[in-house]
Amino acid sequence: MSLEITFLGTGSAFPSPARGASALVLRREGQCWLFDCGEGTQTQLMRSHLRAARITKIFITHLHGDHIFGLPGLLCTLSLQSSPDAKAPVDIYGPLGLRSFLWRSLELSHTQLLFPYTVHELVPTPDQCPPEEFKDFSSWDVGEGVPRGPPGRVVHLDPGEESYLLVEDEQLEVRAFRLFHRVPSFGFVLEEKPRPGKLNVQKLKELGVPPGPLYGKLKSGATIVLEDGAAVSPRDVLEPPVPGRKVCVLGDCSAPLGEAAVRLCRRADLLVHEATLGDGLRDTARQRGHSTPGTAAELARRCRARRLVLTHFSQRYRPAGDGDGEVAELRRQAEAVLDGQEVTLAEDFMTIEIPLRK
Amino acid sequence: MSLEITFLGTGSAFPSPARGASALVLRREGQCWLFDCGEGTQTQLMRSHLRAARITKIFITHLHGDHIFGLPGLLCTLSLQSSPDAKAPVDIYGPLGLRSFLWRSLELSHTQLLFPYTVHELVPTPDQCPPEEFKDFSSWDVGEGVPRGPPGRVVHLDPGEESYLLVEDEQLEVRAFRLFHRVPSFGFVLEEKPRPGKLNVQKLKELGVPPGPLYGKLKSGATIVLEDGAAVSPRDVLEPPVPGRKVCVLGDCSAPLGEAAVRLCRRADLLVHEATLGDGLRDTARQRGHSTPGTAAELARRCRARRLVLTHFSQRYRPAGDGDGEVAELRRQAEAVLDGQEVTLAEDFMTIEIPLRK
Ligand SMILES: [Zn+2]
Ligand SMILES: [Zn+2]
Ligand SMILES: [Zn+2]
Ligand SMILES: [Zn+2]
Repeated sequence: MSLEITFLGTGSAFPSPARGASALVLRREGQCWLFDCGEGTQTQLMRSHLRAARITKIFITHLHGDHIFGLPGLLCTLSLQSSPDAKAPVDIYGPLGLRSFLWRSLELSHTQLLFPYTVHELVPTPDQCPPEEFKDFSSWDVGEGVPRGPPGRVVHLDPGEESYLLVEDEQLEVRAFRLFHRVPSFGFVLEEKPRPGKLNVQKLKELGVPPGPLYGKLKSGATIVLEDGAAVSPRDVLEPPVPGRKVCVLGDCSAPLGEAAVRLCRRADLLVHEATLGDGLRDTARQRGHSTPGTAAELARRCRARRLVLTHFSQRYRPAGDGDGEVAELRRQAEAVLDGQEVTLAEDFMTIEIPLRK
Repeated sequence: MSLEITFLGTGSAFPSPARGASALVLRREGQCWLFDCGEGTQTQLMRSHLRAARITKIFITHLHGDHIFGLPGLLCTLSLQSSPDAKAPVDIYGPLGLRSFLWRSLELSHTQLLFPYTVHELVPTPDQCPPEEFKDFSSWDVGEGVPRGPPGRVVHLDPGEESYLLVEDEQLEVRAFRLFHRVPSFGFVLEEKPRPGKLNVQKLKELGVPPGPLYGKLKSGATIVLEDGAAVSPRDVLEPPVPGRKVCVLGDCSAPLGEAAVRLCRRADLLVHEATLGDGLRDTARQRGHSTPGTAAELARRCRARRLVLTHFSQRYRPAGDGDGEVAELRRQAEAVLDGQEVTLAEDFMTIEIPLRK
């Protein structure tokens, strides 16, 4: 089963012709999940090989404009381009305040979406940003006469896990964890569940299991009893389970909050981390709530990520091949921390496949 | 004094790589005035020869997303790129509801603009759209605990003039007038005041006016009395006044409301009018609150505009030279109504100069 991510915007602060504002798409089984939606994301989608109509989930790391200002327009266009009842519902996950913003933007522009949408809000904790920057949007739409807007859950931090469980089905889980930034920011971890190994037909024959429904029971994890009274457990006839893959997408941050990030991202197949400014500007970066390649690589090292991809570059760093080699310096800074392990610098429209684990 | 407009987005409904969402800039005396601000306008500005920092006024025709969703991001970027106190204040004019939208978008994204901005809201009348579409946003931000947002006037229709006076100084006036669309929409007329003609030095000598302060008085329109008691009026010594220019930018509409548009746009040097669909789809266009080239040209004919420019094309009409000649058909449809008078089809980044009148 293929799993890939495509960067639609890799610039920080605002979109430019060289680097769009933050957005990336994770594609799995033909479904597209969008992470962040800066202004211009819908146009970047049109320029890419992806089909916007396939978007079924949207994750927003934080409420800075370069991560959300493309969202009302994207939803409008998805609706315009879909026939009634043909577009799958869209689930949106993001910080508290997002539901009100979306609802009001659509209401003001007289937009009636032709598909259902749901906004699940993550409640940040005040220690995710400098105290003077923290805003509580929980009361924005309280009061008489204010329609409620779209449905959705309000998700609080699970204090034991230090994370927010957002999605769980038979195949995978998505959790959010907290980051420190100028405003509360989140990282998201998608983790596939291990898939049971294949049946070993040779062994089944040796043990005398007759082909048919018993195969299915074993495959689904049940122990069976043969006619002669002998028990066969799945362990006896299944190849080892195939481990799931793990992809982590972090929002803007100068650092993760607590140890959850290191735990949740452990052995990630892919870790997408911002690196707004070079290591030479580490103090400026930290002051603005941002990371450098060194900061990002340090986290990748601690969680032993298999591959680190840097993004959200200051617009001063032109894409490689654009006549300016400065961005290559960012790669070297990260690789130095990772003992030479290869680091990838994201560019708009770059697609990275995440292969199945062996 | 040069006066020119540059189209930044000429597509309808949503931005695409071929046509940006609605936006155009009128440049006069180094100042830029922006009309509409669809998503992606800030990137289109970067691609153009214009400098976003020169924007001092923004006019919004109506609240559909393809005309406003670029505005919060544009203001953020203007602020990021300006040094404190260096950027001139920005005056924004648009329908009721715009102040709340802007204020909330900036508040949610934790944006503190480094320059002052003012939002002047035009109060539409319910007959500007189908009754079931009319929404009253006047109560959105009423209530305790809701900060007031940026300052600005609330401008009501002047019933005698059937227009809204927005800007008036020694050099020009800007008025808005009402259009009929799916939601209340406006057109804007910028009209330069006539400039006094030059002093005719030959005549001044003949009449015995001594060079000096009296020249200035005559030039400014005052009658003077010479030492011998003879009166000299400005009319005697001034060349005829130079008529001002008139530029009209209409928002989306199927028709203007009442006769104000024809009166206010009379003899316009430039009339910018939408033509979303071709004449063959006139019923569809009208039903969606839009115009065709024929509709637009009819208005241009009635007000005897000197030049008609069509814009806001359905994204199905690719720019000319893009391998598809269909858009040229739109030009022919408009020219047929205007007895062959040349009509211009707008494209992104097209600049049109409006010469001084003779
Ligand atoms: Zn950012
Ligand atoms: Zn940020
Ligand atoms: Zn429009
Ligand atoms: Zn419209």
